[in-house]
Amino acid sequence: MRVAVVGAGVSGLTATKCCMDEGLEPTCFEQSQDIGGLWRYTEHIEPGRPSLYASVISNSSKELSAFSDFPYPEDFPVFLPHAKLLDYLRRYANHFGIMEHIKLGTTVVSIRKRPDFATTGQWDVVTEADGKHTSYVFDAVMVCTGNFPEPTIPLHSFPGIKRFKGQYFHSRQYKRPDVFKGKRVLVVGMGNSGVDIAVEASHVATKVTVSTRRGAWVLGRVFEHGYPWDVVFNTRLMSLIRNNLPGPLARALINYSVNKRFNHENYGLQPEKSCLVREPVLNDDLPSYILTGRITIKPGVKEFKDNSVVFHDCPEEEPIDIVVFCTGYDASFPFLEEKIVKVENKHACLYKYVFPTHLQKPTLAVLGLIRPLGGIMPVIEMQARWAVRVFKGLCQLPPQSVMEKEVNEKKKNQVKWFGLSFDEVLKTEWLAYLDMLASFIGAKPSVPRLLFRDPRLAFTIFFGPCTPYQYRLEGPGRWEGAQQAILTQWDRILKPTKTRVPASTSSPYPSLLIVMGFLLLLAALYFGFP
Amino acid sequence: MRVAVVGAGVSGLTATKCCMDEGLEPTCFEQSQDIGGLWRYTEHIEPGRPSLYASVISNSSKELSAFSDFPYPEDFPVFLPHAKLLDYLRRYANHFGIMEHIKLGTTVVSIRKRPDFATTGQWDVVTEADGKHTSYVFDAVMVCTGNFPEPTIPLHSFPGIKRFKGQYFHSRQYKRPDVFKGKRVLVVGMGNSGVDIAVEASHVATKVTVSTRRGAWVLGRVFEHGYPWDVVFNTRLMSLIRNNLPGPLARALINYSVNKRFNHENYGLQPEKSCLVREPVLNDDLPSYILTGRITIKPGVKEFKDNSVVFHDCPEEEPIDIVVFCTGYDASFPFLEEKIVKVENKHACLYKYVFPTHLQKPTLAVLGLIRPLGGIMPVIEMQARWAVRVFKGLCQLPPQSVMEKEVNEKKKNQVKWFGLSFDEVLKTEWLAYLDMLASFIGAKPSVPRLLFRDPRLAFTIFFGPCTPYQYRLEGPGRWEGAQQAILTQWDRILKPTKTRVPASTSSPYPSLLIVMGFLLLLAALYFGFP
Repeated sequence: MRVAVVGAGVSGLTATKCCMDEGLEPTCFEQSQDIGGLWRYTEHIEPGRPSLYASVISNSSKELSAFSDFPYPEDFPVFLPHAKLLDYLRRYANHFGIMEHIKLGTTVVSIRKRPDFATTGQWDVVTEADGKHTSYVFDAVMVCTGNFPEPTIPLHSFPGIKRFKGQYFHSRQYKRPDVFKGKRVLVVGMGNSGVDIAVEASHVATKVTVSTRRGAWVLGRVFEHGYPWDVVFNTRLMSLIRNNLPGPLARALINYSVNKRFNHENYGLQPEKSCLVREPVLNDDLPSYILTGRITIKPGVKEFKDNSVVFHDCPEEEPIDIVVFCTGYDASFPFLEEKIVKVENKHACLYKYVFPTHLQKPTLAVLGLIRPLGGIMPVIEMQARWAVRVFKGLCQLPPQSVMEKEVNEKKKNQVKWFGLSFDEVLKTEWLAYLDMLASFIGAKPSVPRLLFRDPRLAFTIFFGPCTPYQYRLEGPGRWEGAQQAILTQWDRILKPTKTRVPASTSSPYPSLLIVMGFLLLLAALYFGFP
Repeated sequence: MRVAVVGAGVSGLTATKCCMDEGLEPTCFEQSQDIGGLWRYTEHIEPGRPSLYASVISNSSKELSAFSDFPYPEDFPVFLPHAKLLDYLRRYANHFGIMEHIKLGTTVVSIRKRPDFATTGQWDVVTEADGKHTSYVFDAVMVCTGNFPEPTIPLHSFPGIKRFKGQYFHSRQYKRPDVFKGKRVLVVGMGNSGVDIAVEASHVATKVTVSTRRGAWVLGRVFEHGYPWDVVFNTRLMSLIRNNLPGPLARALINYSVNKRFNHENYGLQPEKSCLVREPVLNDDLPSYILTGRITIKPGVKEFKDNSVVFHDCPEEEPIDIVVFCTGYDASFPFLEEKIVKVENKHACLYKYVFPTHLQKPTLAVLGLIRPLGGIMPVIEMQARWAVRVFKGLCQLPPQSVMEKEVNEKKKNQVKWFGLSFDEVLKTEWLAYLDMLASFIGAKPSVPRLLFRDPRLAFTIFFGPCTPYQYRLEGPGRWEGAQQAILTQWDRILKPTKTRVPASTSSPYPSLLIVMGFLLLLAALYFGFP
């Protein structure tokens, strides 16, 4: 069975590897001359390729963004700059012999159903390399072109932008802060890149203003007691609590915990409707930059003038020299017919974010079109593991009507613009989504069963961060090293920061924690297990 | 009564103003061509003047670092960059007509007791301006030359520094991070400037390492729920709790609260002896910079080699191109005879940090030789208010033997190197020290008395941040605007950050807080008042 993989970034690499694991024949087409996709930073912007800024750092911690059978080296930092992440991807590709399946410098021009698609599920794929076109027939296709291809500036939403005499550009074009030196900067939009750019601009700019219509919850990578946010947030215990609390209580808890670090109202960041926000922004710097006056938060832009901006509900004009639009991206698939993957309101109609609902045969999967609150790599890898099992007929999809109904339900929950409601993000949350796909292929770990076989492991799985190695303990793709990787996860988290150990320190906490943990485990077992 | 004020920085300005308030005749000598002292940033280092780096920001929030009768403008940021702080000092000087008492460009060359000092307490003061020497006789002297005159690099503590081929310099010489571009940087010492420089260096350097022998507690300016740290820390309620808990309990509480933001052990920062640390470092960025691998913490330096450094307890050498010694400053008073102000172990022997203990007449005061955990301006102003009353004979100092005994007691509590033990910092803490001096001059506010006259004010004074206006409610130097300034302090704290207000938000907290607060106030009154 031959599979076409489009793109050799995070998704393409793991898709190729999952095909190899299941005995399929993958061919991975990458239009640029190297692997790495988004994470291969270049000083210049290349058309058709995503583009990062120099200082970008991963939003999820290394143990929770590893591929499930390939932990990061223990001396890698807990959150990864792009060079380290690319280094990891190269190690992954080399370790599993993925490179020999990749055709670099080859663009996929079109993917069309074969005439006999209804019976064979096959695809005609046309590629182009060095001006030469080649046609292939594939039994299945994995679309791995990612989430960020088309920058969006909704200029019609900004009256007066035409008369504005300053400079403006989309965040995609941002590389380094030098461009802001001595300027008065306006950043429009409060996603992760918007805030990163504002912080960096403030090192050299005269003044930095961030305009946000809807506000945002801002979390830090450094979470309670200094643990990485996702190590605390993405545990089975926390997920169990979150998903079983009644709605209002859950919202009150979220409200309390996001405001514990800083009161969003006092910092001008309070979301318009506190329970309906897209995903939170991850930034450690913003609160102190606001408190020290280096960044000012303002409401949405009402109008641009020649050399200034007027904000909603603010009488004064703000003089501005340069504007960065951090208004996000649209997903697009130029090589596919529009009816194969419909994108509406930045939301693709895909069953479990992977399969188009209306194909007669499930032989096309889209990977990575999801923004869960957690590391994206394990999610994409799990999507690939599932998709490959579906291609092989080992996993079945429900009837078309059931899939369509589910996708339409999800759409209703969406807020205008992009993203899910906060509630919804928590409901289709990272861990629940991983568990669901894992259960489809039979790789979901069973804590109760493990409790008798290996209590220490069960304990670590339930209370500790849900590291992806948990999905290699049993089922297809079982990995011998999984147990060891889980039991050593804390070593790899602490090693890069615990670089100085004073002569004599010991604390009574670990033993106390273990006692408490055991009691909680018993309570959890008693009150019912998911 | 004629008073010589040496220096026109923060201390000199308020000393001059306090002399004017009490009807004395101040003459303020400033060796440079402008006022502002430390806070007047210059791009180039001037000999004999303190030097700041471009990005420096005040460590205490504006409401807690105001002079007691001159609040900051409400739109000033909560923590102040140097330009805003200098702006404030200029406004202060102009508002109170201080400028006409200042002689710019005039260096004080020597200050000597007059032959009849034992009866008159007078001083011979010689100054120099444009190469011309002038002699004066003054009835009193206020030394306002500050805390930072002499940079210290204890090179003998760093074996091999002579053979090290890279560049090295003292933090005093640091202005901007450009010098670190593409370099491997080592910062030696973990004071406030060391950490600031490391963070800034990491924006452009290849690698940044911070070496700390003793570790440090690191607090953020952004404290719980986003309030400025000193607004939470320096309240009368918190001070009452801290000073009345038994030692071990207080230490456990401190340990818990400093580690709540991040676990200092996991970040390599755990102090050697957790209860014996100098003042905490204030930095919002360090934890996330460590977690993302942009800064690495290492133990003390064991040895320099040609192009690298070896740390204690670390086998590997660390290649280094450039070293910044953030090893602090020595106080020095070249214009005084050594026996007038003795400096031992970076600690001057001064009664209540102000008066030399062994002079026959208390007509010389040293201002600002103290590092309390809070804003320095109100402290210096209070020292000046007290000193002027002592000069006038309205306040008496205790006998010499009593003063000497107290100073020697304090010295015993000192840790080697500089600074006080953490315990000690909390004991001679900011609020307690201010209250003590205020009680000497009769300006300490009485909460129980106020409770009957103006309960709202009493409530704000007891539970709210101890803003310096509290010391202008009664006694000498009473200011009509004090009550209003106290009741509007939160407006000035929130105004610069609450720059975007979403359409509809309200929270149930304030009323709850008021109820809780009232109960606490009653409890405090019941269990005895300091």
